[in-house]
Amino acid sequence: MTSLPLTLKKISHFLERLPGIGEKTANRLAFYLLRMPENDLKDFANMIASLKSKIKLCSSCFNFTEEEKCEICLDKKRDQGMITVVESVLDLLSLEKGGIYQGIYHVLHGRIDPLNNIRPEDIYIEPLIKRIKNNKEIKEIILATNPDMEGEATAIYIREKIKNQFIGSQTKIKITRLAYGLPIGANLEYADYMTLKKAIEGRNEY
Amino acid sequence: MTSLPLTLKKISHFLERLPGIGEKTANRLAFYLLRMPENDLKDFANMIASLKSKIKLCSSCFNFTEEEKCEICLDKKRDQGMITVVESVLDLLSLEKGGIYQGIYHVLHGRIDPLNNIRPEDIYIEPLIKRIKNNKEIKEIILATNPDMEGEATAIYIREKIKNQFIGSQTKIKITRLAYGLPIGANLEYADYMTLKKAIEGRNEY
Repeated sequence: MTSLPLTLKKISHFLERLPGIGEKTANRLAFYLLRMPENDLKDFANMIASLKSKIKLCSSCFNFTEEEKCEICLDKKRDQGMITVVESVLDLLSLEKGGIYQGIYHVLHGRIDPLNNIRPEDIYIEPLIKRIKNNKEIKEIILATNPDMEGEATAIYIREKIKNQFIGSQTKIKITRLAYGLPIGANLEYADYMTLKKAIEGRNEY
Repeated sequence: MTSLPLTLKKISHFLERLPGIGEKTANRLAFYLLRMPENDLKDFANMIASLKSKIKLCSSCFNFTEEEKCEICLDKKRDQGMITVVESVLDLLSLEKGGIYQGIYHVLHGRIDPLNNIRPEDIYIEPLIKRIKNNKEIKEIILATNPDMEGEATAIYIREKIKNQFIGSQTKIKITRLAYGLPIGANLEYADYMTLKKAIEGRNEY
């Protein structure tokens, strides 16, 4: 790397800090940037410089936004009584892609993960409970944390937390979890044991 | 993507234009940037904005540099009589890594590739010939274009070009090509036919 000019070396080092980018990829990206139009680079630089000051978390669901509330929460056409709880905004984007879901969200920004020292109070669980308490419209909470150990633990924790909250109260909130099973286009031959087990347990009349 | 704030969306779109980065990776990178320290982002933005004005090509070997000549060409300890011809600065960096090579370079910034409309005059072959003509110190040209069809064609083209240049002249410049053969740590079982053929043809006494 000694043979690279300083600016390129610094850009390359910065890119190497991003997830999934090693030294060679970082160099390749830096060289590619060098060939892009000057104006595009200037625009990109401006956006990067203002990124942190512009982007905030939605005061209601913790999705990213440049305003007080995010577009989804402000969308009057969406069902404000149905909240899907996701670990990250990336998960939210996946669910948004097909336009299959018409409710709103709650982004936890993490999951309970004791091995990595992430406790329930480190993610946005408490604001979710408050949100449910303060909004009588809410009819269903869909737990859409990831189907792995930490995601499962987080879903269970939230379920119990909500149930405890409403013991003895008249409110009847439905708590659901995304379905487990074989992904579309999958091959039984290559499916793992746990997925097959869940697919059998969750079989439906046909 | 409609649910992302504008700045994030634009950064993500920009990153998607880079090689090997799809929509999901672009989003993940943009979100990661959001969590980086403000100052680092500002520094990065400044570097990006000044990148194109700062980085030039070395007037001698066409490596990237911020000065008139690159560090390698200016390094008096290196053998100025030995030039390794590479397709790109990335290739130069690979050769520099181990510190095994102590000569200087010539970067073509491409290879002859008629299918993609890249002709000999589109890459820096002519300056190489001039460089050899004007510098009587040069004793050896190592052709280090890639061992594939286009790289091979480029190497042959340059070899003939240099030879023609010095027909009848007293100068005796050695033209060499990197060795072909099995890469270290390879397994014969998985080696391809062409590599094995070259390894047998190039066998050495042992």
